[in-house]
Amino acid sequence: MEASLIPDIVVSRLPRYLQALHYLEEEGQHATSSQELGEHIGISAAQIRKDLSHFGEFGKQGTGYSIPFLIDQLQTILKVKQTWEIALIGAGDLGHAIARYQGFANRGFRVAVVFDVDPHKIGSQIGGFVVQDMANLVPMIREKGIKVAMLTVPADSAQKVSEELVRAGIRSILSYAPIPLNLPTEVFVQYIDPIIQLQHMTYYIG
Amino acid sequence: MEASLIPDIVVSRLPRYLQALHYLEEEGQHATSSQELGEHIGISAAQIRKDLSHFGEFGKQGTGYSIPFLIDQLQTILKVKQTWEIALIGAGDLGHAIARYQGFANRGFRVAVVFDVDPHKIGSQIGGFVVQDMANLVPMIREKGIKVAMLTVPADSAQKVSEELVRAGIRSILSYAPIPLNLPTEVFVQYIDPIIQLQHMTYYIG
Repeated sequence: MEASLIPDIVVSRLPRYLQALHYLEEEGQHATSSQELGEHIGISAAQIRKDLSHFGEFGKQGTGYSIPFLIDQLQTILKVKQTWEIALIGAGDLGHAIARYQGFANRGFRVAVVFDVDPHKIGSQIGGFVVQDMANLVPMIREKGIKVAMLTVPADSAQKVSEELVRAGIRSILSYAPIPLNLPTEVFVQYIDPIIQLQHMTYYIG
Repeated sequence: MEASLIPDIVVSRLPRYLQALHYLEEEGQHATSSQELGEHIGISAAQIRKDLSHFGEFGKQGTGYSIPFLIDQLQTILKVKQTWEIALIGAGDLGHAIARYQGFANRGFRVAVVFDVDPHKIGSQIGGFVVQDMANLVPMIREKGIKVAMLTVPADSAQKVSEELVRAGIRSILSYAPIPLNLPTEVFVQYIDPIIQLQHMTYYIG
């Protein structure tokens, strides 16, 4: 089945299944069911079975899913059996937290290089990385062949920096800057803005 | 119209409209159209008009939307004309970044109290806050009447801490811990896990 034929909403749920499977595995479980997985994630068992059926037959009626097998299959589908290098742009508080975050290991990613524009930060160490001068962003990312970037720069420089990332060959950008980026459609951009999520929730507080 | 009759997917998009409107306002604009807004966010103009029509008539055919008026209306709908106090749980790297983050102002939130379990962190200052002992979490949050929490504790303590938050009267939790929380359905939980979003994107890198 062609990857492009799978609805994006289905693809978007696969990492959540993988996350829950890792958790169950760490709890010492070897097998699970779509029911159990669904209860953990808050998605119906039927939806999980339907989503997975796009990619093949992973479980057995009655015995459910082998957790190591399903982890392996999902990692292959999501292309995270390899380790993707991340270019981290912005060495502020959030950049620091990301550079030092230990949770990337075993989930398919590692920060490989950190950039900033601030002369006081360039050359300093964060999380074991020497902060690089943003002026060298395009050649350094090109040379390393990095395809994934995380963007923690201020809103007013995010558009300009993201355009440089595209020039450098970046294909996926996870942006923490609280503005929508306007980039070529072949670049996949996702956003993390905690206030968007907080505002969604306060709607429901009576 | 009853709030409960509006589909959640519609509600989830309103904060993104508000974010884009703030951006356009800061750029000096006073009016916008569903077309322009849609181009910024990557949502069709028709979808935006349909979403907003759930809540009333905010624009005029031909002249579009007054930005200050639509901001005011969306802030009222999302209940963010008031400022919600946030209990921040976890004073690690990410907790530090959140405590010092300047972007909450004017978007309806402010961190009001920071908790940690680590005796080395309790009593220390981060972002102008004295870190409080997690042992006092329930009485302190109850006394302050805080309804919103951000959770940056490790995965293995997230479930236990979130149950305490519910006991303390918290209604909405934004969790950075990479595990699904199992809580009463009346508590609204959202998650931020950058790796989930990165894995979604790598699926598409050829």
